[in-house]
Amino acid sequence: MLKFKLLIGALALTGASVAAAVEWRPLPTKAPEPADNPSTPAKVELGKMLYHDVRLSANGVLSCNSCHNVMLGGEDNRGGSIGVKDQRGGRSAPTVWNAAFNSVQFWDGRAPSLEAQAKGPVTNPIEMGMKNWEEVIARLKAIPGYAQAFAAAFGSPDAITPDNVAKAIAAYERTLITPNSPYDRYVAGDKSALTEQQVRGMNTFAEVGCIGCHSGPAFNGPTLPEGTGFFQKFPTYQDAALEGQYGFTTDLGRFEVTKNDADKHLFKVPTLRNVALTSPYFHNGKVRRLEDAVKIMAKLQLNKELTPAQTSDIVAFLNALTGEFPKIEMPRLPAYSDNSFPYE
Amino acid sequence: MLKFKLLIGALALTGASVAAAVEWRPLPTKAPEPADNPSTPAKVELGKMLYHDVRLSANGVLSCNSCHNVMLGGEDNRGGSIGVKDQRGGRSAPTVWNAAFNSVQFWDGRAPSLEAQAKGPVTNPIEMGMKNWEEVIARLKAIPGYAQAFAAAFGSPDAITPDNVAKAIAAYERTLITPNSPYDRYVAGDKSALTEQQVRGMNTFAEVGCIGCHSGPAFNGPTLPEGTGFFQKFPTYQDAALEGQYGFTTDLGRFEVTKNDADKHLFKVPTLRNVALTSPYFHNGKVRRLEDAVKIMAKLQLNKELTPAQTSDIVAFLNALTGEFPKIEMPRLPAYSDNSFPYE
Repeated sequence: MLKFKLLIGALALTGASVAAAVEWRPLPTKAPEPADNPSTPAKVELGKMLYHDVRLSANGVLSCNSCHNVMLGGEDNRGGSIGVKDQRGGRSAPTVWNAAFNSVQFWDGRAPSLEAQAKGPVTNPIEMGMKNWEEVIARLKAIPGYAQAFAAAFGSPDAITPDNVAKAIAAYERTLITPNSPYDRYVAGDKSALTEQQVRGMNTFAEVGCIGCHSGPAFNGPTLPEGTGFFQKFPTYQDAALEGQYGFTTDLGRFEVTKNDADKHLFKVPTLRNVALTSPYFHNGKVRRLEDAVKIMAKLQLNKELTPAQTSDIVAFLNALTGEFPKIEMPRLPAYSDNSFPYE
Repeated sequence: MLKFKLLIGALALTGASVAAAVEWRPLPTKAPEPADNPSTPAKVELGKMLYHDVRLSANGVLSCNSCHNVMLGGEDNRGGSIGVKDQRGGRSAPTVWNAAFNSVQFWDGRAPSLEAQAKGPVTNPIEMGMKNWEEVIARLKAIPGYAQAFAAAFGSPDAITPDNVAKAIAAYERTLITPNSPYDRYVAGDKSALTEQQVRGMNTFAEVGCIGCHSGPAFNGPTLPEGTGFFQKFPTYQDAALEGQYGFTTDLGRFEVTKNDADKHLFKVPTLRNVALTSPYFHNGKVRRLEDAVKIMAKLQLNKELTPAQTSDIVAFLNALTGEFPKIEMPRLPAYSDNSFPYE
């Protein structure tokens, strides 16, 4: 709905009037929860334990947090993440911060929910490398403290199942929200929260058309029912020099999931929240500098050459999307019973 | 002093009278600090950031916490830790919990202080794998938020030096203390804090002679000036079957540092605090079960065969050395300036 309004606006209006027509919205402080997975403190605590537990990886070195680091910008600041046995993943890990506001997960949208996403990396052979979920569950069952934690979260010590692991992790991830950025404070009425340059950048962001896709409170598109997905073709416009430098089209994107030609090079529109912390950029993580990413996006998605002033204004605005990170206490991870170790 | 008292006691007394003669001491709630590194909240906070920052490893995957995991028993529950490029270390990582009460660090005591220890793994090629400390410092200087954190801790943004990195990490480690175990509450006067079996085990622990070396509040030997070191030969007695099974004598221990024949097979006496959480056991991490470790220690160090009842009583007592873990808030790690990434 918002998207259509904005697109119509972009046709009819120009310049500052576009920006004025935008319904700028702050980030909600609470994420939507699916009906079958209401959050509870016990479930969030269990999810935090699982998210940070390296024993969910084959070699006991990597946790969810290894690639989606909540002490940083919610990812690992690299092009391809490093999985078990020093293997390298093919896409740049998306941030976990505010992922609860994505209507689909993964760059290709192959997971319709946080719950579905959480089940992926654990058994991916080049990520956490567990053989299968039976192996994961067997490990968790060998750790007596997890029986208690699952009982507290799901009502029974027998509740150690793949679905419940995923539900608990998703419940934790729904707490990973970064409200009160300078942008949020500005749209809430504090006109001193943004610098003049950031306000100019905000208007430019709307005027040149970035907001056509990066709309809504998380700047990741319109608010859609979970699982719907908001995809765009990238690149939309071709540029031989940029392609030669960055190789964006090597990855067929959503086509790899659907095998539908119309889905070639379609990617989920990622959130721009905390984008200043999540370099390198794009699905392949080939672009280090935010200003380069902004120029490339204008060129490849809007067929526009930004002026240096426009670029630096937009970058200044994007820096205003860095929010407040909640304080998180480290989980205590329960010990193995001493004859059940899965690795040397 | 305590050590000599205990040894003399063991010669003159038998049975319960030995246990009664022991000066059982609770764990201090504060660790000693060297004169040149007084702890401050800003230094501890900086140390926590550095301790948990994967960017101190060559490939950006490992932090101090990877092998010395404070969410677990302060180590990684494996025989040899996994370093960069999936390399395997030669000794089992000691726990960081209460390491502030060790008078030397590493199994071979090659570091006289927490500060000296902290400088080791970062540039060890099979651990964190940084080329040298110049490279570490260059990385930290490329992260603007660290200039602020070092200024807060050491009074100047120019204070990003190897010595100060080590001092900050050591200051954080001095907060990693686990007081108020059932044992501590028992010796403080709460006679209900231990079970009858644990009290029996405590007496047996003294009577059979474990406490000859595992003495003092951290059960790692007498309180000595930092850097002095309390070493014992392991194994003291030979057993071909155990040697064949576990290969304890492959590692020459402190000899590797001093090249002094008298130091062959000498190892630092490790703390027994939280020992129930730090399987597998011994310098080579070859023994998984605590009850096996207890039997092996009695055999190889005291030339005694424990009865099954003695073994299980001692194990019950050792479980009473699991303390209370302080709540630790995750650090916020500052972002790279976006054109200074050291890895892809």
